[in-house]
Amino acid sequence: MAEMKEMGLTQMVITDPVSIAHLAVHYENPMERFWALYLREDGAHKLIANRLFTLNDVSGIDILWYSDSEDGTVLLNSCIDHTKPLGVDKEMAARFLLRLMEQGAAPEYVNGSDCVDRIRAQKDEQERELMRASSQINDAAMAEFKKLIRPGVTELEIAEQMEGIYKRLGADGGSFGALVGFGANAANGHHGPDETVLKRGDCVLFDVGCKKEGYCSDMTRTFFFGEVSEAHRKVYETVLRAQEAAERAIRPGVKLSEIDRIARDIITEAGYGPYFTHRLGHFIGMEVHEKGDVSGGSELIAQPGMTFSIEPGIYLPGDVGVRIEDLVLVTETGVEILNHYTKELQVVEE
Amino acid sequence: MAEMKEMGLTQMVITDPVSIAHLAVHYENPMERFWALYLREDGAHKLIANRLFTLNDVSGIDILWYSDSEDGTVLLNSCIDHTKPLGVDKEMAARFLLRLMEQGAAPEYVNGSDCVDRIRAQKDEQERELMRASSQINDAAMAEFKKLIRPGVTELEIAEQMEGIYKRLGADGGSFGALVGFGANAANGHHGPDETVLKRGDCVLFDVGCKKEGYCSDMTRTFFFGEVSEAHRKVYETVLRAQEAAERAIRPGVKLSEIDRIARDIITEAGYGPYFTHRLGHFIGMEVHEKGDVSGGSELIAQPGMTFSIEPGIYLPGDVGVRIEDLVLVTETGVEILNHYTKELQVVEE
Repeated sequence: MAEMKEMGLTQMVITDPVSIAHLAVHYENPMERFWALYLREDGAHKLIANRLFTLNDVSGIDILWYSDSEDGTVLLNSCIDHTKPLGVDKEMAARFLLRLMEQGAAPEYVNGSDCVDRIRAQKDEQERELMRASSQINDAAMAEFKKLIRPGVTELEIAEQMEGIYKRLGADGGSFGALVGFGANAANGHHGPDETVLKRGDCVLFDVGCKKEGYCSDMTRTFFFGEVSEAHRKVYETVLRAQEAAERAIRPGVKLSEIDRIARDIITEAGYGPYFTHRLGHFIGMEVHEKGDVSGGSELIAQPGMTFSIEPGIYLPGDVGVRIEDLVLVTETGVEILNHYTKELQVVEE
Repeated sequence: MAEMKEMGLTQMVITDPVSIAHLAVHYENPMERFWALYLREDGAHKLIANRLFTLNDVSGIDILWYSDSEDGTVLLNSCIDHTKPLGVDKEMAARFLLRLMEQGAAPEYVNGSDCVDRIRAQKDEQERELMRASSQINDAAMAEFKKLIRPGVTELEIAEQMEGIYKRLGADGGSFGALVGFGANAANGHHGPDETVLKRGDCVLFDVGCKKEGYCSDMTRTFFFGEVSEAHRKVYETVLRAQEAAERAIRPGVKLSEIDRIARDIITEAGYGPYFTHRLGHFIGMEVHEKGDVSGGSELIAQPGMTFSIEPGIYLPGDVGVRIEDLVLVTETGVEILNHYTKELQVVEE
């Protein structure tokens, strides 16, 4: 409510299932159906739910039910104050937003996600514990994944074993489709694991994460197989220097754009500027990518409780890709690195 | 273009990654980034892409690139005819749609998804073959899943083996999170597999599907374990009669609301009307749930090439849930049932 007031909003509709789960406990995957939390300053909040959903764990809030033959947005519209601007969350699908507009739900529609995203961005103590637990499993998993690097293995053979390893280590499961890239494949930012066979001299990039009680981890390490060329070693050491310098600079009050600049400058000075093609990091929590990034264009300031990734990379097309990524938690006085798996260059013997 | 013209649209923006893949070949999961196909009647189509995407398989269309520090909607806005209504697809996230509105992209915004959804709804011969292939694997998988029903097994133990079975049978993988429900859990429409242990007399509901070359299957069968009570047998036979009667009634030109009515009447006459709590079916193709449903409120007419599910169910809270689901393909002269796994009541012996 305080966040809404600050944005000048008296009412807001949230449709992102993860944000609803954060505020109203219950997670529901609504598929194509309408599922919304309507918040208003007088406290007359409502959940709009399809009769197919089972909301036994929801209490203390009115639930308005609709069936598959009804239009949930009409039900929502009956609650809305038609004279005041309506905040909507950034994920609301056009089919619902346009339907509300057709019904004249409000004189103005505002992307009000910041209200919720700011709350989600700053983790409380319980959430911090879950973020630590998730990354702790991810550290242990990375040690297991390294053991899968052997002559003749394919990317897919490694990727397929990851889910089972996470579960054996106590995770709910993976938090996203693991990226496994050998050699030049690692230079392709969104290469999915395929039948590529590991060759001597290849880099081996693992960008992986799991979920633990709903909270995500995300870490990248890049190994080499059999040998590492001097050129590749130089790439690796540049990325590592950039990654560590950025982490060292994090403390409450620092601009996140400044953190990005520190890493980017090191890579640029080493001559690889054009090959670091993405932002330095992204926020993370109940989702792998949450609102907020660590980039040149970010206007965010580090605040205690924020958790984000620091993941510089250098990608030489057709040759090699190196990325090193940790999650970090901004603390009251500085920074806590959530990953502890070594970042030393490791050459896995054949 | 013809579909757009029929809706009175001269320009349209598509952001659903699956629809973009259908029209422009390339599938990209953009995460939170902007990824759009802009279509206009004069043929000056554009793709708006983040520099991180790799679009090697895209040809014959201009690509406008933006980087993480830029706003992709500004790039899109620079192409739009600001004097004409803009069609947007039903999935476009509010954060992009509101940004376009702020920039005054168009005088009016229309949910134009039907243009694309109509094309996606009517499968051509190549797509029909893929839908058949996907359901054929699903039939074979169901026979394997049945073998997992044994004393002491939990829902989760069965669910965890499904992905591997699909892959061994040649699928890309599962098409959605499998539903596995024992006994009363099967009466809860969206129960996820948990540690529930199988008991004698339980029903065992499997709602499962896989993907084959991007096309989805989806089938439900309900078994019984050890024995079946007369009350449960009556429920099963009612669902089966409704399911088969609905399938028999499908042919080009029939209203889909009529198909729903046929199944619903049988269930209502048997006294279970209040316990059939959902629509009869949903469209399916590259996604498990596509636009279009088989329900009392549907205004759709069966047309050759449409593929949808027929899945009546009866759910007695705290007791039993039975659903039987096939996919069907409307042909030029009638209907082809895509699933061939038996629908006879099967009691799995202890």
